[in-house]
Amino acid sequence: MPKQDRLPKQDRFPKQDRSRATRRRLLEAAVACLAEHGWAGSTVSVVAERAGVSRGAAQHHFPTREDLFTAAVAYVAEERSTALRALFPGAPTEGPADRSAVVAALVDLYTGPLFRAALHLWVAASNEEQLRPQVTELEARVGRETHRIAVELLSADESRPGVRETVQGLLDMARGLGLANLLTDDGARRERVVTQWAALLEEALD
Amino acid sequence: MPKQDRLPKQDRFPKQDRSRATRRRLLEAAVACLAEHGWAGSTVSVVAERAGVSRGAAQHHFPTREDLFTAAVAYVAEERSTALRALFPGAPTEGPADRSAVVAALVDLYTGPLFRAALHLWVAASNEEQLRPQVTELEARVGRETHRIAVELLSADESRPGVRETVQGLLDMARGLGLANLLTDDGARRERVVTQWAALLEEALD
Repeated sequence: MPKQDRLPKQDRFPKQDRSRATRRRLLEAAVACLAEHGWAGSTVSVVAERAGVSRGAAQHHFPTREDLFTAAVAYVAEERSTALRALFPGAPTEGPADRSAVVAALVDLYTGPLFRAALHLWVAASNEEQLRPQVTELEARVGRETHRIAVELLSADESRPGVRETVQGLLDMARGLGLANLLTDDGARRERVVTQWAALLEEALD
Repeated sequence: MPKQDRLPKQDRFPKQDRSRATRRRLLEAAVACLAEHGWAGSTVSVVAERAGVSRGAAQHHFPTREDLFTAAVAYVAEERSTALRALFPGAPTEGPADRSAVVAALVDLYTGPLFRAALHLWVAASNEEQLRPQVTELEARVGRETHRIAVELLSADESRPGVRETVQGLLDMARGLGLANLLTDDGARRERVVTQWAALLEEALD
């Protein structure tokens, strides 16, 4: 990039910023598109149009459709993890978080557009060979990170037998509650289930 | 059907039997097809060919694609419910079933081809208006029936506060475990989680 090298330094940064902003717009549009239209209705063109970006620019950032949607789910999952930690700013170093509130916040991870988008991607990956390796790797990575945050915020002592599996089961339950919310608003039932299992978990972890 | 009315009675039954057998072959082929190829790859023609039935005969039994696949998931879900009850023949009237075994059997409902097929149908219904009402009704019906069997086999006393939600959360966890098994064989981890949650449940229900 000899031409760019001759530009004054302060002019180069805005260009990087613009590129980052374009990338972010594409990722957010891709997740929204997956959540609303499913995998079959989600193409690079549809996302580029939604993001107000040319198809060429979209392909510059993400060479394949698989790259775009896997990166999108990964990006939003990271944003959600950051937001989850921010809900309990002092925990666990300055004191334990309220466990019922942590359980409710963990379950919330699985009931919004991100879970809906991820679900479409997982289900598509189960039948599409070219999507499968990336999504399998992504699912494992997001799963490990969510487990790590859950253990930390719940102040769960995984050196005690059964504690690791208790937390894993809780996240499996959260995933199942997300699925139960796919076709109908399951909020009222979910709240009762979460209250009850938060109480059972409190006993199991103490 | 004046012509059929003139046939001797014993000849009419085999015809009904053949029709029932055709119907069953179509339903089983439809579930296998959904599980393997997803909703996009599952058409009436593909299922008819797999079942060795003409497309016309398939449409005689199931006028629309939505009818065929919704009926298929309903049929296999009923078969699975019957099989689940048969695993614990005396329970609960002649004595309670072993709760750990019941939990394991309930979780098994969500890890085979039926769950995979149902998942494809649910996810497709979340984006396709003409599929949604039938699948929403089906999901509610299968959910109620599974809950009823679980309560019965676990000898859960739902008049006690929290017991209903404990069982619901268990089934949500089972659904989440099914989802975790979609892309990779999650059997080893699942077994440990199921053992731990069965123990938590035992304490909660006693």
